[in-house]
Amino acid sequence: MTTAVPADAQALHDRSIIVDGLQTCLWGRPIFEEMHASGLTAINVSTVLWENFREGIGYVSMWKRYLRENADILRPVRSVADIHTAKQEGRVGIILGWQNTSPLEDKLDYVEIFKDLGVNIMQLTYNTQNYSGAGYLEENDGGLTGFGREVVSEMNRLGVLCDLSHVGDKTSADTIAHSKAPVCISHVLPRALHDVKRNKNDDLFLACAEKGGLIGTSFFAPGLKAGNDATVEDVLDAMEHVIDLVGVDHVGIGTDFSLDRPRPSEWLLWANRDKGTARTLTEFGSVKINKPLGVRRMTDMPNMTARMLARGWGEQNVSKILGENWLRLFDVAWTPSAD
Amino acid sequence: MTTAVPADAQALHDRSIIVDGLQTCLWGRPIFEEMHASGLTAINVSTVLWENFREGIGYVSMWKRYLRENADILRPVRSVADIHTAKQEGRVGIILGWQNTSPLEDKLDYVEIFKDLGVNIMQLTYNTQNYSGAGYLEENDGGLTGFGREVVSEMNRLGVLCDLSHVGDKTSADTIAHSKAPVCISHVLPRALHDVKRNKNDDLFLACAEKGGLIGTSFFAPGLKAGNDATVEDVLDAMEHVIDLVGVDHVGIGTDFSLDRPRPSEWLLWANRDKGTARTLTEFGSVKINKPLGVRRMTDMPNMTARMLARGWGEQNVSKILGENWLRLFDVAWTPSAD
Repeated sequence: MTTAVPADAQALHDRSIIVDGLQTCLWGRPIFEEMHASGLTAINVSTVLWENFREGIGYVSMWKRYLRENADILRPVRSVADIHTAKQEGRVGIILGWQNTSPLEDKLDYVEIFKDLGVNIMQLTYNTQNYSGAGYLEENDGGLTGFGREVVSEMNRLGVLCDLSHVGDKTSADTIAHSKAPVCISHVLPRALHDVKRNKNDDLFLACAEKGGLIGTSFFAPGLKAGNDATVEDVLDAMEHVIDLVGVDHVGIGTDFSLDRPRPSEWLLWANRDKGTARTLTEFGSVKINKPLGVRRMTDMPNMTARMLARGWGEQNVSKILGENWLRLFDVAWTPSAD
Repeated sequence: MTTAVPADAQALHDRSIIVDGLQTCLWGRPIFEEMHASGLTAINVSTVLWENFREGIGYVSMWKRYLRENADILRPVRSVADIHTAKQEGRVGIILGWQNTSPLEDKLDYVEIFKDLGVNIMQLTYNTQNYSGAGYLEENDGGLTGFGREVVSEMNRLGVLCDLSHVGDKTSADTIAHSKAPVCISHVLPRALHDVKRNKNDDLFLACAEKGGLIGTSFFAPGLKAGNDATVEDVLDAMEHVIDLVGVDHVGIGTDFSLDRPRPSEWLLWANRDKGTARTLTEFGSVKINKPLGVRRMTDMPNMTARMLARGWGEQNVSKILGENWLRLFDVAWTPSAD
């Protein structure tokens, strides 16, 4: 399933701008080389889960070092122009993103501090309650808080893309309604096909798309009905469901690749506790978090392009899904608002 | 109204243990001398509103300095025994308390850190959402969060009294239901007499009392129907309403004295913004925050004792309200739980 990529698919893959809406890999030279070999043009690197302000600063600094030390194959991205440049240079564009607004702590002003430092995507909450709203594992979701409304407005003002993937249902709906700019659900699967809490329902996808937003299809096996047996075809079935619902212009890819992280690891145990040190949030179930067969690693991505073409989606639509839709969203959401 | 305190009332006042459930005065020698002159035995000094961890530590340090420099008239309180000792010594016992769990930041472990440092009362939230729940000014109250349940359980385990005065209705009810130890509503007035958001309804008073908790009657004029025209009699009407509802054993005093703070001041503007620097929360209305006539300052407290006796409540009940009820609650709530 991962071997025979037809020449036309490989050619389309090679000339397309390909954006991965979210990865949480074990960063380092081996992964950077895989990014480069896979033909990915730009990636939202997003391992901030529970970090506080100082740790959020540390994340920026760490990436500044990575970018300096791996400048032969990576380049920083702060704009859509940077992504085009990355493509021309044959380097992988690195978009700094977070999966929690925890580094803002209690300071609304820090949205601007981090935008200045190059953080262009912020998921409003990770899995639990924070100052802005509730994550999807919070028992009660009171919706977007007063502070959350201010945070989203600041993101709009400054040009930070708001992500809702792990955010609770009510907080997500409130955020879409409140935000002046389009938002994304960077790595998600449809609840209509598999009813688990981490997935999202069609109403939310529709609301997101109606405001010009984007739904990134995740490769997260526990979010697919086939679980451990899932393949790239299950991922594409999920993608097709969303395309049929909201149209091809509002769908992209957010792999959620978490490659080379040992299981179990201190990092995973930390990730699975509220705020890193409080209660354990989920039992690791029987579904492994291996990616579906056919898209196990970044280097399998040309295979996905081939499978999309094999479904008869056409080169133009495939290019949109691979990256053009992301670019259009970034262009709008990263532009500071006039007022 | 503040002048003629009958001898029997003054005598009762002088021999009683008098606890003030909450003050936010401008701390310094003049206020400490007024505390001492007023016959107050112990006071929850509670000006932490939006402080973060380091600022919470700073609050403890500041009070250690105050206690050292004013040891002739003040003494620290960590136990009920300390309050009895304060009475015997003729010094004012200082109970360290907070009006927000914001200094815990995202660290459940910090409950124990601050208990060790002598913080014996923590209001779960100030006026807005925090990690534990919603404050009364939050538009939507999703109730006690998962992290909030853990925080309350830690308070129970370690012996920290949980206060619900500024907490939202649903979060308050959830907390009373979840807490193993009795809680307090340290400074509050009944919504049954004046329907404003900051007041609380009878159901919550009943739930609090049923679990062995205490309702501290506040002197906050905007919470009284008479507003600027309120007198000590309005305060006692409010107290009487709660006594009739839950019984005399579950009622005390929490003056909310905020004496000698200039109006307006940087501190008040900070207090009135979410987290100190975000949006302004309330418009300062036409109701001044002067205390009701007859209890304008701490030195008027003997007058309140006299007015309670004049209502025929009897010395035993008045002593309970003045301080004994607080002592009974402290004794239970400050004891670490066995499990």
